[in-house]
Amino acid sequence: MITLDTIQTAHDRIRPYIHRTAVLTNQTINDRAGAELFFKCENFQKIGAFKARGGLNAVLQVARNKEGAAITTHSSGNHAQAVAFAARQVGLPAYIVMPRTAPKVKKEAVLGYGADVIECEPTLDAREAGVRDVMQRTGAVLVHPFDDDRVIAGQATAAKELIEDTGLDGLGQDHPFDVILAPVGGGGLLSGTALATHYLSPTTRVIAGEPEGAADAVLSFRSGQVEKAPYINTIADGLMTSLSERTLAIIQAHVTDILTVSDAEIIDAMRLVWERMKIIIEPSCAVPLAVVLKHKEQFAGQKIGIILTGGNVDLGKLPF
Amino acid sequence: MITLDTIQTAHDRIRPYIHRTAVLTNQTINDRAGAELFFKCENFQKIGAFKARGGLNAVLQVARNKEGAAITTHSSGNHAQAVAFAARQVGLPAYIVMPRTAPKVKKEAVLGYGADVIECEPTLDAREAGVRDVMQRTGAVLVHPFDDDRVIAGQATAAKELIEDTGLDGLGQDHPFDVILAPVGGGGLLSGTALATHYLSPTTRVIAGEPEGAADAVLSFRSGQVEKAPYINTIADGLMTSLSERTLAIIQAHVTDILTVSDAEIIDAMRLVWERMKIIIEPSCAVPLAVVLKHKEQFAGQKIGIILTGGNVDLGKLPF
Repeated sequence: MITLDTIQTAHDRIRPYIHRTAVLTNQTINDRAGAELFFKCENFQKIGAFKARGGLNAVLQVARNKEGAAITTHSSGNHAQAVAFAARQVGLPAYIVMPRTAPKVKKEAVLGYGADVIECEPTLDAREAGVRDVMQRTGAVLVHPFDDDRVIAGQATAAKELIEDTGLDGLGQDHPFDVILAPVGGGGLLSGTALATHYLSPTTRVIAGEPEGAADAVLSFRSGQVEKAPYINTIADGLMTSLSERTLAIIQAHVTDILTVSDAEIIDAMRLVWERMKIIIEPSCAVPLAVVLKHKEQFAGQKIGIILTGGNVDLGKLPF
Repeated sequence: MITLDTIQTAHDRIRPYIHRTAVLTNQTINDRAGAELFFKCENFQKIGAFKARGGLNAVLQVARNKEGAAITTHSSGNHAQAVAFAARQVGLPAYIVMPRTAPKVKKEAVLGYGADVIECEPTLDAREAGVRDVMQRTGAVLVHPFDDDRVIAGQATAAKELIEDTGLDGLGQDHPFDVILAPVGGGGLLSGTALATHYLSPTTRVIAGEPEGAADAVLSFRSGQVEKAPYINTIADGLMTSLSERTLAIIQAHVTDILTVSDAEIIDAMRLVWERMKIIIEPSCAVPLAVVLKHKEQFAGQKIGIILTGGNVDLGKLPF
């Protein structure tokens, strides 16, 4: 059970290691959306993504409680860097199982934080087998990318800061956030965002954005069971995983809706942020803005918080 | 004569219309440079560049003093947008003479601010003739991109904010800026930066960065006369113009040195900022950081302010 106290304690624990990232606004994008948007810039976070928060909250506890001699995880993306970064902070070895197809630049980033990279075939079975092998061989503790309360509580601190730093919680004179949006992949960020918002700004709805080409969460949300996506084909490479029982339960309790967008809509929103806000966001990160621009009538005139999740893109492979 | 009072008055005049842009730092870039860098992010400024400051300071005075019925300038870049933006704020018509070879996206940005675009041949003679014609026909007042004390005083407010917001002026407990760097094209920003630094943080050196492919300022600085560049061929499209007598005089009085960098060094520095700071800067803007990375021994261990001048790039034509 992740309580408000769990989230506050997580925040106190990770605060010395993270950036309190800026909340930016942009008049042109407000005009385009017909709403008032506040962007929580986790692209400026350590390792370039919010994942530093959850990784730190888990790894710092593993180290303090002496739960294991090392840390392991499997990831081809930002969570790999987050765990490698967090393990370095506490001086534990990190073993990151990565598919051999992962971009070289991502492997190098993980190596740059002093972690070991163990290559495997690009299947979930091979990745999980790789982690089991590391755990037996090294006594490492697994820090799962999202199916872990400590990770979820860490991710919750992004929405906590967004609400605290804008003061849009309904306690002040300003009208509170009508809605806070986050993208959904495995559901760690979305669960944390929904819980933080539930506790800190209870009148605010939480809505998720999901790519059409990885639309498992919207199905699971409606059926109440963990579903697979009908197909996986999207530029939003951080959002390809499916929910777990744990994240689905939190999402069903505290999320209002999940809306999908196409890759073309994601790329348009990403380009708008690059051109107008002059900041670099990755495709997964543009999904919530794409949702707002697609469903303008639903968000017209509202105060909207958006978690910009990360800025790790390969500049040699841009979609425009 | 641009005094401290001139700059303070300019700042008060333009403050309601501009952003007080953030000053960002980045550990990785500090480690790479072996120095402590503070980036003044004018890429987040209105119209995406510091030029909004000088344009506003001139146009607001033209309007208040009823000096003319309209505003005109010639520019293919950020100054065109700055004048169009400023003229719209005061409700004066703006006529912007642009070479017919200017990118369509830049013409559209100027049109988007409600200005008229007058196309001409891509030569300085044709541009100046175009402006003379507009002035005769419409009674417009010329706001030159840099050869104008009001423009220089406006540009000076960027360094003023950088010094004020960091407190690194030698009056507090912290060691002041050892050096502040700006790029040099026509010298408007560099002159303003040098004057603001001279008045507000007098122990701080001011150094300029210039592309090897538009290296007029370094020659003029050494000879004491306005010189032409040996050749013009650089990706830093905002820095192709030469100094004027006015800007050269200020630069000779208050600038310590001008250092040149190659286009390859500019692109490397630009990519480093995009990848590590997750912000979008244009090539001209990367020149001072390229200087610091090229001459590490000269800047080792120092506190360095850098004016990041703008973020208007064509995402369809990136150099990486």
